Amino acid sequence: MEEKVKGKLMIIGGAEDKEGECVILRKLVELAGGQEGHIVILTVATEYPQSIGEEYTQIFDRFGVRDISVIHIDSRHHANNDGFIDKMDVATCIFFTGGDQLRITSLLGGTKAEEKLKEAYHRGVVIAGTSAGASVMSETMITSGNDDDAPKKCTLKMAPGLGLLKDVVIDQHFAQRGRIGRLLTAIAQNPHMLGVGIDEDTAIIIDGDAVFEVIGSHAVTILDGKNLDFTNVSELKPDEILALTNVVMHVLPAGYRYDIKSRRPVIRR
Amino acid sequence: MEEKVKGKLMIIGGAEDKEGECVILRKLVELAGGQEGHIVILTVATEYPQSIGEEYTQIFDRFGVRDISVIHIDSRHHANNDGFIDKMDVATCIFFTGGDQLRITSLLGGTKAEEKLKEAYHRGVVIAGTSAGASVMSETMITSGNDDDAPKKCTLKMAPGLGLLKDVVIDQHFAQRGRIGRLLTAIAQNPHMLGVGIDEDTAIIIDGDAVFEVIGSHAVTILDGKNLDFTNVSELKPDEILALTNVVMHVLPAGYRYDIKSRRPVIRR
Repeated sequence: MEEKVKGKLMIIGGAEDKEGECVILRKLVELAGGQEGHIVILTVATEYPQSIGEEYTQIFDRFGVRDISVIHIDSRHHANNDGFIDKMDVATCIFFTGGDQLRITSLLGGTKAEEKLKEAYHRGVVIAGTSAGASVMSETMITSGNDDDAPKKCTLKMAPGLGLLKDVVIDQHFAQRGRIGRLLTAIAQNPHMLGVGIDEDTAIIIDGDAVFEVIGSHAVTILDGKNLDFTNVSELKPDEILALTNVVMHVLPAGYRYDIKSRRPVIRR
Repeated sequence: MEEKVKGKLMIIGGAEDKEGECVILRKLVELAGGQEGHIVILTVATEYPQSIGEEYTQIFDRFGVRDISVIHIDSRHHANNDGFIDKMDVATCIFFTGGDQLRITSLLGGTKAEEKLKEAYHRGVVIAGTSAGASVMSETMITSGNDDDAPKKCTLKMAPGLGLLKDVVIDQHFAQRGRIGRLLTAIAQNPHMLGVGIDEDTAIIIDGDAVFEVIGSHAVTILDGKNLDFTNVSELKPDEILALTNVVMHVLPAGYRYDIKSRRPVIRR
């Protein structure tokens, strides 16, 4: 039997507020233990690790967090290096910035850094990520696809993610970039997977029981293909349009919860 | 008992191909009776009636249609004028160009032109429309709303349409402009209505039995809120994000059919 995970995930749809009330990043600090927390910022996704690392450091510093580290990993050699392990061992939150999700998985996959990350998650650490850092949470992640387009099979590219969240495919910048077509394509390919599209400045927080809560200013769209009764996904020529029938959709703003295992929204009435 | 409608509707999601194979406009000509058809182009939606009227005239002319008329209606006075009635009486297809859907309804609503249009539809004429000309087909139409955004109640504006198509709200340029949020808002307000989002260069053709078929290069998204089991639409403050659970969605490309009355896709296996 798999040991129960003690950590939480905070998966952010990108473009979270950094100047106003900062609902999401303040919640991240709270989950990380507040001023006493130890936040590790992983800039591996971005080609601008210096400036992005500094930006988040300043934000968390403004919220009074005393122990903030930035780890810039720019090679697999570095990801197998012991230099940063002390920091990950004491972290209460490990935060992935945005950038390119394939940088995260290609640089960390199979390395000591990934091992430490998963250890931390099982131990009870909050693992957070925004944009590319959100996509990598699932077992299979979307790496590219068309925005503002009807669902088309061969325009979607997927790759193995970090696998912290089971049975789900995440998409981010969801409504703002018109990504429902690409997420529908993903779930048509395997309706076992739940599609979770997270808007900008919006996040889900997931505990070990696979129930998530929405926070932030927009919404989370859930696409459940479990009852799909028809799709032409396997018959298609490249670029043909997908047909799908009977997808169940939920749109949940802040305060609403969803149970991934039972595939039901948890509505407070 | 209402008399059975003999006409067909062709509702086009905008930006239909005008230079390549012209699948949609060729089908329109075919439905209109081919070269022997009488096509009336209504430019009432647009502020550029001259150039848009000429553009479609040239296209239908290229397909060999011998009788093509353009009617520019620019005032309610004009819409009550007898001058163009002969043309509408012999039309086999009346086609609404794109533009602004409120121009169509505010200029035609309650006039002789509208009366003639509805007579023609009952008599067996094909009524077609693209973009704004698509939106006006339903009883209540979307006039404006946010693109690429989460569903929000007070950003959606609706108005009475021409009412040729019952129990449906149409949206156009659907995937291309990221309009699922605004169509979800519309159906949340009254889940009796079926949401039908038509992509660019894509159309539905509806016969009197309320079964439509999809043609064109992209897809039609159907949002069925009949089983909605929760929405906060009536409790919201302006601009708050909508919550909706249990919307059923279908995505249908060319060749697929859907039965509006039974709310079921008709799949050829």
